Amino acid sequence: MRKRMRDYGICVGQLPPGQLNSISDVKGVRVGHSTVIYGEGKLIPEEGPARTGVTAVIPRNGNLFKEKLLASCFVGNGFGKSVGLMQIRELGTLETPVILTNTLSVGIASNALIEYMLSFNEDIGITTGTVNPVVMECNDGYLNDIRGRHIKKEHVFEALNNASLEFETGSVGAGTGMICHGFKGGIGTSSRQIEIDGNIFTIGALLLTNYGRMEDLTFKGKNVGRLLKQRLKDKEEKNGIPKDKDDGSCIIIIATDLPLDNLMLERIAKRGILGLARTGSFMGNGSGDIVLAFSTANKIDHYGENLIEFKTLSHHCDAVDLAFQAAVEAVEEAVWDSLFTAEKIIGRDGHEVPVLPVEEFLNLID
Amino acid sequence: MRKRMRDYGICVGQLPPGQLNSISDVKGVRVGHSTVIYGEGKLIPEEGPARTGVTAVIPRNGNLFKEKLLASCFVGNGFGKSVGLMQIRELGTLETPVILTNTLSVGIASNALIEYMLSFNEDIGITTGTVNPVVMECNDGYLNDIRGRHIKKEHVFEALNNASLEFETGSVGAGTGMICHGFKGGIGTSSRQIEIDGNIFTIGALLLTNYGRMEDLTFKGKNVGRLLKQRLKDKEEKNGIPKDKDDGSCIIIIATDLPLDNLMLERIAKRGILGLARTGSFMGNGSGDIVLAFSTANKIDHYGENLIEFKTLSHHCDAVDLAFQAAVEAVEEAVWDSLFTAEKIIGRDGHEVPVLPVEEFLNLID
Amino acid sequence: MRKRMRDYGICVGQLPPGQLNSISDVKGVRVGHSTVIYGEGKLIPEEGPARTGVTAVIPRNGNLFKEKLLASCFVGNGFGKSVGLMQIRELGTLETPVILTNTLSVGIASNALIEYMLSFNEDIGITTGTVNPVVMECNDGYLNDIRGRHIKKEHVFEALNNASLEFETGSVGAGTGMICHGFKGGIGTSSRQIEIDGNIFTIGALLLTNYGRMEDLTFKGKNVGRLLKQRLKDKEEKNGIPKDKDDGSCIIIIATDLPLDNLMLERIAKRGILGLARTGSFMGNGSGDIVLAFSTANKIDHYGENLIEFKTLSHHCDAVDLAFQAAVEAVEEAVWDSLFTAEKIIGRDGHEVPVLPVEEFLNLID
Amino acid sequence: MRKRMRDYGICVGQLPPGQLNSISDVKGVRVGHSTVIYGEGKLIPEEGPARTGVTAVIPRNGNLFKEKLLASCFVGNGFGKSVGLMQIRELGTLETPVILTNTLSVGIASNALIEYMLSFNEDIGITTGTVNPVVMECNDGYLNDIRGRHIKKEHVFEALNNASLEFETGSVGAGTGMICHGFKGGIGTSSRQIEIDGNIFTIGALLLTNYGRMEDLTFKGKNVGRLLKQRLKDKEEKNGIPKDKDDGSCIIIIATDLPLDNLMLERIAKRGILGLARTGSFMGNGSGDIVLAFSTANKIDHYGENLIEFKTLSHHCDAVDLAFQAAVEAVEEAVWDSLFTAEKIIGRDGHEVPVLPVEEFLNLID
Repeated sequence: MRKRMRDYGICVGQLPPGQLNSISDVKGVRVGHSTVIYGEGKLIPEEGPARTGVTAVIPRNGNLFKEKLLASCFVGNGFGKSVGLMQIRELGTLETPVILTNTLSVGIASNALIEYMLSFNEDIGITTGTVNPVVMECNDGYLNDIRGRHIKKEHVFEALNNASLEFETGSVGAGTGMICHGFKGGIGTSSRQIEIDGNIFTIGALLLTNYGRMEDLTFKGKNVGRLLKQRLKDKEEKNGIPKDKDDGSCIIIIATDLPLDNLMLERIAKRGILGLARTGSFMGNGSGDIVLAFSTANKIDHYGENLIEFKTLSHHCDAVDLAFQAAVEAVEEAVWDSLFTAEKIIGRDGHEVPVLPVEEFLNLID
Repeated sequence: MRKRMRDYGICVGQLPPGQLNSISDVKGVRVGHSTVIYGEGKLIPEEGPARTGVTAVIPRNGNLFKEKLLASCFVGNGFGKSVGLMQIRELGTLETPVILTNTLSVGIASNALIEYMLSFNEDIGITTGTVNPVVMECNDGYLNDIRGRHIKKEHVFEALNNASLEFETGSVGAGTGMICHGFKGGIGTSSRQIEIDGNIFTIGALLLTNYGRMEDLTFKGKNVGRLLKQRLKDKEEKNGIPKDKDDGSCIIIIATDLPLDNLMLERIAKRGILGLARTGSFMGNGSGDIVLAFSTANKIDHYGENLIEFKTLSHHCDAVDLAFQAAVEAVEEAVWDSLFTAEKIIGRDGHEVPVLPVEEFLNLID
Repeated sequence: MRKRMRDYGICVGQLPPGQLNSISDVKGVRVGHSTVIYGEGKLIPEEGPARTGVTAVIPRNGNLFKEKLLASCFVGNGFGKSVGLMQIRELGTLETPVILTNTLSVGIASNALIEYMLSFNEDIGITTGTVNPVVMECNDGYLNDIRGRHIKKEHVFEALNNASLEFETGSVGAGTGMICHGFKGGIGTSSRQIEIDGNIFTIGALLLTNYGRMEDLTFKGKNVGRLLKQRLKDKEEKNGIPKDKDDGSCIIIIATDLPLDNLMLERIAKRGILGLARTGSFMGNGSGDIVLAFSTANKIDHYGENLIEFKTLSHHCDAVDLAFQAAVEAVEEAVWDSLFTAEKIIGRDGHEVPVLPVEEFLNLID
Repeated sequence: MRKRMRDYGICVGQLPPGQLNSISDVKGVRVGHSTVIYGEGKLIPEEGPARTGVTAVIPRNGNLFKEKLLASCFVGNGFGKSVGLMQIRELGTLETPVILTNTLSVGIASNALIEYMLSFNEDIGITTGTVNPVVMECNDGYLNDIRGRHIKKEHVFEALNNASLEFETGSVGAGTGMICHGFKGGIGTSSRQIEIDGNIFTIGALLLTNYGRMEDLTFKGKNVGRLLKQRLKDKEEKNGIPKDKDDGSCIIIIATDLPLDNLMLERIAKRGILGLARTGSFMGNGSGDIVLAFSTANKIDHYGENLIEFKTLSHHCDAVDLAFQAAVEAVEEAVWDSLFTAEKIIGRDGHEVPVLPVEEFLNLID
């Protein structure tokens, strides 16, 4: 397994990470994967090879449909097919785990997530209304036979069942076939801790990175992408010459135990794309840059009281600046986490993208 | 088959309808259904009985992925699970037919629509990007075993293949199990013609009606709902006493051959909900009131030129007021079309809602 | 003074009004006017005659800048020049009274409102940030020399100082020169009471009505406008023949003591335009149909704690349907209140619009 | 006069600038200032000293009300008081010059801009509707007696009359009292050229910079802010120690001759804030980060045809990525332009912020 960025003594941002430097530093959040790899060689559309998977983010323990969390979202660039966001905007609540997968498998994953939710809630569709599955996606079609929709419902259940505090990053789960700034991308995570009125709160991010051109990749403002691209060319690694188009996407999930109402969560979600900007993204035309943010601090009971109370950070306090900064930093570092930890994947038609060459990278930023 | 409202010499609004008084008066638009009815009696969750279906709206002939139409949408109340709207907002284009079905079958229908689109476009997912399926829904769980997700991909294909200029309304396709203001609802359609600079343009609406309380049902401002409810009670039709909750939804599709850019289409979409208001809706908490509007007057070529031209009604002309009025009237009449034509359906657990009692209704509004 | 609609034994909607049937039934809300009328005869642009004014809505007693209220807004049709809404969307708070006036006097009124706020808050602009004045408007240019910007800051102060529980409606304050559905419009108000968990809550609306064509005016679904228009023609009241264009606007302010967070307030605000739809509006191209909604149940302290608590109606309770219904009904009745109470105003160039002919109206709706 | 960044041989981004590296490289765009400085020493609230001004951006020659331009906007963080954006969103058009000034003078400037527009358009308010003034702002209250509202209408006229292709940047016009990342900020501009299908198009940005903490200031990813702050502390320049709060704002105006419809202009506007992110901004709670984007390529005639044509870059071409990149780069460089060219200003109560110490900066980034 490849090492994470901080294992090399490098970091971005100024705030301290949580214990695991992971979205699961937010108490109750767990992540699981199902990685789907089979077949190799030439693409036979809809038959393989498969280089894809599913990642599940479970926002908290217990029955999320019965006790929902407050959530909001922000669409940086909406070239994407995520489902479930409309209802989150209207009601401000998250009532299912979040499933990440490839673009053309959203329907299947959504159906599986419904099945999963039905199994725990016998009232749905009979004595109460329906359920709002949240599924987000990127396009892994350069490495994966995406037309084959190789994700089956079992993979979704597996990802959900695998969910734990500690989880792999890089070329796993939904990240299996993803590409970020011309290098192998996928799942990345990071967290930050902030102190408000003597209490420590955690803001964590989990990303599915699949966006950007190599030539734009930027570490702390240094354009390392063009330099690395030139070296790859020099080595004639022809499989490794990435596409020039920014036609991927980036899914950003931000979790926190800081009490935030929907208005404040939307503002946090907006900051997610500023983290991307720091790595060189200009939210390309073909990129679905979508942020989902939720807080574990309040619960809304599905069958609860009419009149309730929320805790939230005040709309008029500057302390929220710390939360904004934490969100930006956690997203920025999660991009690097995906690049540092992603393993090499040889995909359909011999397609291959290089992994981030850590040694050269370290020399460049020295 | 039950008669339409105008067959009784009644109409709402002031503008003239098109030839068929249907969304298919907009040249190129076709509609098809697949009705799924089997089993009866007591609900065995996930086994039946099934009272559901699929309706497909095909916006124009030819390959819609290769030559897209401009589209926009408006969310009146976002308690809903429609998919595909985010990308429509971002890119302003519709590139697939629109599928209507029940809430818990959106994933399956979405997957089927992807399969349909892949079959006509070998480039998707290989040499070009992915496709954005548009699927919209209402909850038919009072009559239908919605947990059973009885919609299969074949039903989606059937609805698409059935598409034609003339089509049934009422308790067919996606409308099979829907309830509107306590009466049997479902599919309704209507159209209006307007003249601008000597040219006739058509604005058509197709609705999936599944919202509202009986006591709010209003015909031209007259609250007929409470009167009809009282009579039902007097007859002790106990199966027929509807729920009091406005927990359904209404999907509104507006089509036009009037040239409109995305900004103008969004404004048209907003007017859709005013048509609902005229029938007594106040967009209840549990209702997903969603409008999709598209124009057939411009095409955007998937592989086209970088610099293109659009025709549109000017942003600063008052002629758009005619289009607004037409949209409001077509939506209002489409609600009544669904109520007049919906046939009786006996659903799960003996659930049954009355059809609109036309004779009594006519007496009331006299 | 003309009588209100309920004085004739007529009402719209089903819920009971508050004691005054006024926005001031919401405890703490007060309203004041300054009516500006001088000169007559032919328009000398920028000299007169003046038929305009200012209306001030004070959301609660005490220093609103230091203890703000939660607020949200919805733009039905954004052909308008209201100021202050952007910050309300971002921070969710209302920190000044709301000033209503004519379109071209927004700048002057905004400056006056700033001066008013500075006078009570010595810290603004020195030790704390700035203040967000909220000013909303309609175009009274058919009766008033709007180019003259006859509103001076003294009129704004006067309206603020006049604020009280009981206030006039119709052709007063900002309503002085306004026209609604071809009749004299202006200020209208109404309220509704709802019961949730044994508590009575009030929802009140105050409107500045200046929109619509006579031919669309609708009372409980009956198009009375065309009938009244025909009778006016028959009488050859040629000054009274209204313009056919829907180029006015409607400002809607909704106040409540029901605890609502920003997400719920935005949903309430959206319902405001459904009330308009019931009177015949289709939100014409030239109409600025803008809704501001606030709740008096929570305060946000400008210098307060970082972590606070809100009360709110749950996002997942159906009790909010009552609040939706109340908002729709209060807005609908406030339109009629403006029409019933507006007095005749002879404006520039002999322009005159008829007042609603109550007797004929009563005969028509019988 | 201080030199611009490129005079030192430094640049950010990869695309070439236009001839003047200015928003006025977009043909027709002109900029003018009125700088208001008088009094000194201790603040006597509402009397002075004044350190403020007005900047006017004229989007094109000729009568902009009669022939409007397409425009859109994006609100990064809406803690701000800009006026005119609601109508731009609804109608998609810009019909006045854009005025920049201080927060509490928006009302006065808005009134002056109305007066300016009326003087060229005798029909406004008489035979046609009203006009939508666009005024944007930042808070200069640390240096300026902002409560005094020292801007008078003459200053607005002066800025409009001064408009020319070449104009000063830094501590001039609206930029006189502004602070950016703890250093003297103000007006900055930059441009980029892109080639699409053999045609050269220009994207220019003009910023009013008044945001950010010194410790976050970042040049190409290097945090120079903390280093510079330490050196300032070492020198005990106590006046120069900036506030730690990010409570300013940043107004971003993006102009282009690239044909773009409203949907595409909104996407361009969104990219504006990515340029800020690259300089260290995380859009602080108190910052109004607002972007206005317009294209000079299409005109909408106020009295024109109902059915018109627009040119636009296709919604489905990747060539827009170049425009996105150009917008991000121009905004990023315009921040630096404001910092490099801003001259020292001693404000109220002896308040003073340091200018960017160029020599030290150059050493740091070497």
